[in-house]
Amino acid sequence: MLILGIDPGSVVCGYGVIEFYSGKLSLIEYGSIKVKKKNEDLTQRLKEIFLRLNAVIDRTKPDIAVFETVFYSKNAQSLMKLSFARASAILATSLKDIKFAEFTPREIKKSVTGNGNAGKKQVQFMVRTLLKIQETPDFYDATDALATAICYAFRNQNIAKTSKTWTEFIKQNPDKILKI
Amino acid sequence: MLILGIDPGSVVCGYGVIEFYSGKLSLIEYGSIKVKKKNEDLTQRLKEIFLRLNAVIDRTKPDIAVFETVFYSKNAQSLMKLSFARASAILATSLKDIKFAEFTPREIKKSVTGNGNAGKKQVQFMVRTLLKIQETPDFYDATDALATAICYAFRNQNIAKTSKTWTEFIKQNPDKILKI
Repeated sequence: MLILGIDPGSVVCGYGVIEFYSGKLSLIEYGSIKVKKKNEDLTQRLKEIFLRLNAVIDRTKPDIAVFETVFYSKNAQSLMKLSFARASAILATSLKDIKFAEFTPREIKKSVTGNGNAGKKQVQFMVRTLLKIQETPDFYDATDALATAICYAFRNQNIAKTSKTWTEFIKQNPDKILKI
Repeated sequence: MLILGIDPGSVVCGYGVIEFYSGKLSLIEYGSIKVKKKNEDLTQRLKEIFLRLNAVIDRTKPDIAVFETVFYSKNAQSLMKLSFARASAILATSLKDIKFAEFTPREIKKSVTGNGNAGKKQVQFMVRTLLKIQETPDFYDATDALATAICYAFRNQNIAKTSKTWTEFIKQNPDKILKI
């Protein structure tokens, strides 16, 4: 099963695609869509997020898109900007008929570190460890997106058994299948 | 010039397309996208607004999309829902490279009725009068969308001179053009 985690901020939208198969996590790709701060044009910002995520989806063909639940923001303006970014990201996935899931920040931290109140550094450390990520420079913006994808994997261990990867495995290895 | 006014609410998204040519307003079409209250699925709601507006745009080919500026809402949850609907509508227009404009509620009321504090009924009365609308049943949801489009027309009287309609007129009436 291929899981796309998305962390849509109003300035940077992080994303990460992981594969979860037989209880094993593998990193497919991760990145961040940086929307220039100087670019104040809302319509272009939404378009940028939508089109870039569209390209990621076309490239990786995820089975599910997972988001962090948003409850509040520091003020109405920033909540609006955050909601706009989030809607663009959701539309990019729903127009491709990709299933949707979301978790609270607490659920995500708990899944990845074992502690629902874990700090950002601890989450980053665990994401790097679980996905065997060596790089650091561009990694940080995608941390929460990858953590969200990992959370989905850990909380849905059973679904991986009927995953796309398994079907692909059968196709590629017909001799290994027991015929009953 | 063809102007698309959009009023994206979280339950109903009203829209209206008008033509503005030589200082004259004409109604092209109006309607409302009703998103069922029972349908609590956010992703489907966003998709519905996006796809329905896409169809309106393909049908009417507007030159500009005009929105009412949103500043606040009664609470964070409703502001988020409103922002989601708004982002879907903006994306539907920006992905088709349609220009974007917005006005405050006060500017819209002032343009349509002459009074920035006009009530809803007064705005509805003027929209019906200006666009010669006879119907009432389905009209109300689209009132604010049409008022927004009219506001753009009245505040940009000069641009109508270089409108698409004029080009079409020349094409359809080549004999009426003075050759210099």
